Amino acid sequence: MRLGGIPAQIRRHGRKDLMLAVFDRPTPVAGVFTRSTAASAAVRWDRSILSGARARALVVNSGNANAWTGGAGSETVEQTVQAVAAIVRCPIRHVFVSSTGVIGEVLDSSKIKNALPRLYRQLTPKSWTAAARAIMTTDTFPKGATRSATINGRAVTINGIAKGSGMIAPNMATMLAYVFTDARLPARLLQRMLWAANRESFNAITVDGDTSTSDTVLAFATGAVALGCNPTSLRDPRLAEFRAALGSLTVDLAQQIVRDGEGASKFITISVKGAASSFSARRIAFSIANSPLVKTAIAGSDPNWGRIVMAIGKASQVINPEKLSVRIGPYLTTEGGGVKAGYDESLVAEYMKGDEIDIDVHMGVGRARATVWTCDLTHQYVTINADYRS
Amino acid sequence: MRLGGIPAQIRRHGRKDLMLAVFDRPTPVAGVFTRSTAASAAVRWDRSILSGARARALVVNSGNANAWTGGAGSETVEQTVQAVAAIVRCPIRHVFVSSTGVIGEVLDSSKIKNALPRLYRQLTPKSWTAAARAIMTTDTFPKGATRSATINGRAVTINGIAKGSGMIAPNMATMLAYVFTDARLPARLLQRMLWAANRESFNAITVDGDTSTSDTVLAFATGAVALGCNPTSLRDPRLAEFRAALGSLTVDLAQQIVRDGEGASKFITISVKGAASSFSARRIAFSIANSPLVKTAIAGSDPNWGRIVMAIGKASQVINPEKLSVRIGPYLTTEGGGVKAGYDESLVAEYMKGDEIDIDVHMGVGRARATVWTCDLTHQYVTINADYRS
Repeated sequence: MRLGGIPAQIRRHGRKDLMLAVFDRPTPVAGVFTRSTAASAAVRWDRSILSGARARALVVNSGNANAWTGGAGSETVEQTVQAVAAIVRCPIRHVFVSSTGVIGEVLDSSKIKNALPRLYRQLTPKSWTAAARAIMTTDTFPKGATRSATINGRAVTINGIAKGSGMIAPNMATMLAYVFTDARLPARLLQRMLWAANRESFNAITVDGDTSTSDTVLAFATGAVALGCNPTSLRDPRLAEFRAALGSLTVDLAQQIVRDGEGASKFITISVKGAASSFSARRIAFSIANSPLVKTAIAGSDPNWGRIVMAIGKASQVINPEKLSVRIGPYLTTEGGGVKAGYDESLVAEYMKGDEIDIDVHMGVGRARATVWTCDLTHQYVTINADYRS
Repeated sequence: MRLGGIPAQIRRHGRKDLMLAVFDRPTPVAGVFTRSTAASAAVRWDRSILSGARARALVVNSGNANAWTGGAGSETVEQTVQAVAAIVRCPIRHVFVSSTGVIGEVLDSSKIKNALPRLYRQLTPKSWTAAARAIMTTDTFPKGATRSATINGRAVTINGIAKGSGMIAPNMATMLAYVFTDARLPARLLQRMLWAANRESFNAITVDGDTSTSDTVLAFATGAVALGCNPTSLRDPRLAEFRAALGSLTVDLAQQIVRDGEGASKFITISVKGAASSFSARRIAFSIANSPLVKTAIAGSDPNWGRIVMAIGKASQVINPEKLSVRIGPYLTTEGGGVKAGYDESLVAEYMKGDEIDIDVHMGVGRARATVWTCDLTHQYVTINADYRS
């Protein structure tokens, strides 16, 4: 496979805004998309071709989401996939497309068509950074990760790039991510592995609780490395190492997105244990992660654990005040339904000045757990979003 | 009835922080409380005495929520109601209590006990403003309203006070409100009328989507005005005027809370019409009202209607892009799944500079509707909440 990214004058300031990846042969592909009922034209196209599909190309633009643009939006997608199909020489149903940026503005496909020949000539097998840069919007750094694993004794590689820093919440985490592996894997198995990895990575992060119209994660198995076996089940022990690597890579990319969260000054890990169910653990963790009062307290390095209890309370999940405990970093703040005996706030205040904040909640009512990652809510978030378009 | 408020050194800076209302005789009372599973000791007390109860007194402190304070919290409530009962000469089960402020810090009941005799001597039938001031936390102004109505030809009055500016979201709207009427009404009927009014007022506002541990609305019918009739049903036509007045008063108080939302610079009314169900209309309206991206765009006077569509999309409700329309003020921004033909953004940008922003969504899929009120998300919100306690 080859990829690359160049400026196509979709965004201002001549930054890179068009990314293309091309596969040498029809490639098994798996995908997970936004659950928004206002999904973009590109998401609707990808969904329509995903089932049983092979991919020969992936084209992504930043600067314009081509979402909520009516008939014009679908037309732009058609024009785009036709232009890519012509240059790659493949059916249009082998071309996947994503768009990210402002919602509700018509995307002029001629900008993409005009830039494609030049971009196609520049593709290389190694232009990961150029590709990662071309899909950025308010991101402050390009996001990528790589892992290696063996399947049945054969060494395989997984590479991934991602973008996202605002409009980030599960269902799925509002962002774009593309994962490429040279392992020769069937699409159906790839899809199952992507679902499982997605749940614990991109669907376990939140910046602002908002869900975009364009969320997309695609995984491609280019098949350069034959596996000498035909694993069909997720539980095949020969896949264990690969699945761990895929999980680690998607968590890495998801955490990069949170670290680059709009205006973020702190990276927050929220672990909920001892919950009544897995659903309950996630609901509680996200209730804390999305609470503006918790997020602003952390921005101010204020060890205001009472707001964490508030966020647990508003999640409407099974609770036993006598059993619940909350730790901030290594410090137990509350247990037995009140402040911990001998609690020394000055120690926690010192800890809160750091850049990485761990919140550990033990519900004491069951055995289920969940971990989610988020960032703080700062003045910079308001600055970025009060005037994003100008 | 008589009421008043004085400083009791619970809050800093010697501001008023203790409020007392006393009723001449046992008075029918109705209540609605937070749905938080971490409800405060005061809320748990009020709930336990509400059923079939009469009230002789209401005592409220600000500066400390007495929430998540374990056994010490319940003890403080006991000491407080005992002290009030002794001074008013009534059973403790006739004393209602609320606390608002920081969560997780033990509230020293001796401060309340010491201040009570002085406060009791100062009570008057007209000290509404002193009472409203004593229940404020981050509020910037005291909140009150009054209405009159007739029932069966008899003139009655409703007075209300409220507090709240942050941690405001439904279930129920995170705040305290107390409503007093001289109409002689049975508790059961008062409770039904309060439920109905609450749904369309305090449960239709949001500042930050966070739900407090201490939300309380209580209504008292002191009975000074005999009605010469015994209405028992909510649908009794003799109650129509009173119910309208109660609705108007609670909406007035709820809107005052939103106008005083932490850091708020704009008052936003979100109306959703043509939704598939009443539940759906509320979900969509609150999805818009709680979206940080919508709220920051409004803070920046940015007519970014694409974010409104995003928020509709993430609500997971029935949608038909062809039928959906969004108006900002008098301006139609989108219809038929895309931007409105001839849309002139400069007009909407000018409108957005105002202090009162109306967002009207028509889903075009049914006949249900909902209206909610909220405010924008500003730098000032972050400033207030990043360092609330110091």
